[in-house]
Amino acid sequence: MNRNILTVPVQKIEGTSSTPHQDLLAVEEPLEIRIGDKTVAITMRTPGNDFELAAGFLFTEGILQSSHELARIHWSDSKGRAAGNSVTVELAPGAEVDYERLERHFYTSSSCGVCGKASIEAIAVNSCPVLPKNAPLATQAVIHQLPEILRAEQKVFDRTGGLHAAALFDTSGRLLLSREDVGRHNALDKLIGAQMLAGKTPLEQNLLLVSGRASFELVQKALMAGIPILAAVGAPSSLAVETAQRFGMTLIGFVRDERFNIYSGASRIQ
Amino acid sequence: MNRNILTVPVQKIEGTSSTPHQDLLAVEEPLEIRIGDKTVAITMRTPGNDFELAAGFLFTEGILQSSHELARIHWSDSKGRAAGNSVTVELAPGAEVDYERLERHFYTSSSCGVCGKASIEAIAVNSCPVLPKNAPLATQAVIHQLPEILRAEQKVFDRTGGLHAAALFDTSGRLLLSREDVGRHNALDKLIGAQMLAGKTPLEQNLLLVSGRASFELVQKALMAGIPILAAVGAPSSLAVETAQRFGMTLIGFVRDERFNIYSGASRIQ
Repeated sequence: MNRNILTVPVQKIEGTSSTPHQDLLAVEEPLEIRIGDKTVAITMRTPGNDFELAAGFLFTEGILQSSHELARIHWSDSKGRAAGNSVTVELAPGAEVDYERLERHFYTSSSCGVCGKASIEAIAVNSCPVLPKNAPLATQAVIHQLPEILRAEQKVFDRTGGLHAAALFDTSGRLLLSREDVGRHNALDKLIGAQMLAGKTPLEQNLLLVSGRASFELVQKALMAGIPILAAVGAPSSLAVETAQRFGMTLIGFVRDERFNIYSGASRIQ
Repeated sequence: MNRNILTVPVQKIEGTSSTPHQDLLAVEEPLEIRIGDKTVAITMRTPGNDFELAAGFLFTEGILQSSHELARIHWSDSKGRAAGNSVTVELAPGAEVDYERLERHFYTSSSCGVCGKASIEAIAVNSCPVLPKNAPLATQAVIHQLPEILRAEQKVFDRTGGLHAAALFDTSGRLLLSREDVGRHNALDKLIGAQMLAGKTPLEQNLLLVSGRASFELVQKALMAGIPILAAVGAPSSLAVETAQRFGMTLIGFVRDERFNIYSGASRIQ
């Protein structure tokens, strides 16, 4: 029994023929993330690694700074029942959370109102780690290899076609950890959460590969974890590139078939 | 000048060669959606069709029931300034909005706490239209054609690789409208919002094609608009399939290369 895959009957149509068939689906279920008795977020995710997801989410959104602020993570809903879709994070004595921050919109500033620039500056206010300046950190040959290594690891995706993946590598291209989820941001939060809980953040000597496109949100989360190189199999967005440039992150897109584009921070790639 | 595409310089790596190159990016910018003086949501979207996005979002989230509840949509931020990333919706006299609904979490019920079943039932509470029972509505041949028609229309995607698309068809496979966005939910909200503003909802004689995967959120939005057939180029999630089954929607996945899988409501396909 695998909680993250579900088998369902389908009608398989090929040309004009129709046959009954069993198909595998990626499971999607809501997860409530709580700090003590407060609901902080509800995200649609694939079950599995949920404590990592909760820890990673709180960390990459700037709500928690390190694993030292965590006393305990457990399954518990609003009524204190052990429930498989509600994770409660208990804070260590002295840990302070800016609850107002949770309510606030990060994408606004008084000068320009709602805009991409304000979104970018909100990360700086959020005390993200300064990325290592020294370059280069990885060779072109290492970048070329990443998708193949991820594909070999991405087992559920191969079976369902329905999951995003995020994978962490060292600078020699060795896979350290990968996580999968129906939500690309969840896959990354699980990955970063795992490293944070293991006391390994900031991830300043690591490369990150994501299976899809690179959005602002993914760049933001990678920055909060101190990751200097983000490579995506798909395209980056304009705001992802602007954010990477602002913070000196190396952003690489379209990593496939022995090709890629460097959008920012080319000096880290040999 | 196209507001939804940005040209940037990149280093293009092919094997071991590196050449400077100009690349096209899909633009991503935040949009604030307001009702009067209240901020209802901030979404990262590709600029363009923003009034449709605002109207569609409020409609598919169950906040507005029809275009009659809208008096005016205009560019205006929290200080009443005309701003390109803040859309304000003014309600018609007598239109009532359940503001508490905006704060509430839809994915919980008192019986099972947070779970997929509660997420599904929240849609029913939300008075989504009843889908037409009479089948069939479309032929297999029509379904096979949809991706090719969308690809011909999806111009920005072809240039940037960075956009999701949603397209509405009639039952003979004629394309009625398509919209693109960095966010798949935004592409669908723009599409549904356009039809809602034109007084064409519910869309009970229409087919919807989405360029990526089918998540719970996309099924939910399509249901709110009364769309009986949702076809996706990618995979559906477990909760997408369960939701389609619960409401009698026809859900089709992996529509490509003269093949597709029917996950729910096969009787609508001839």
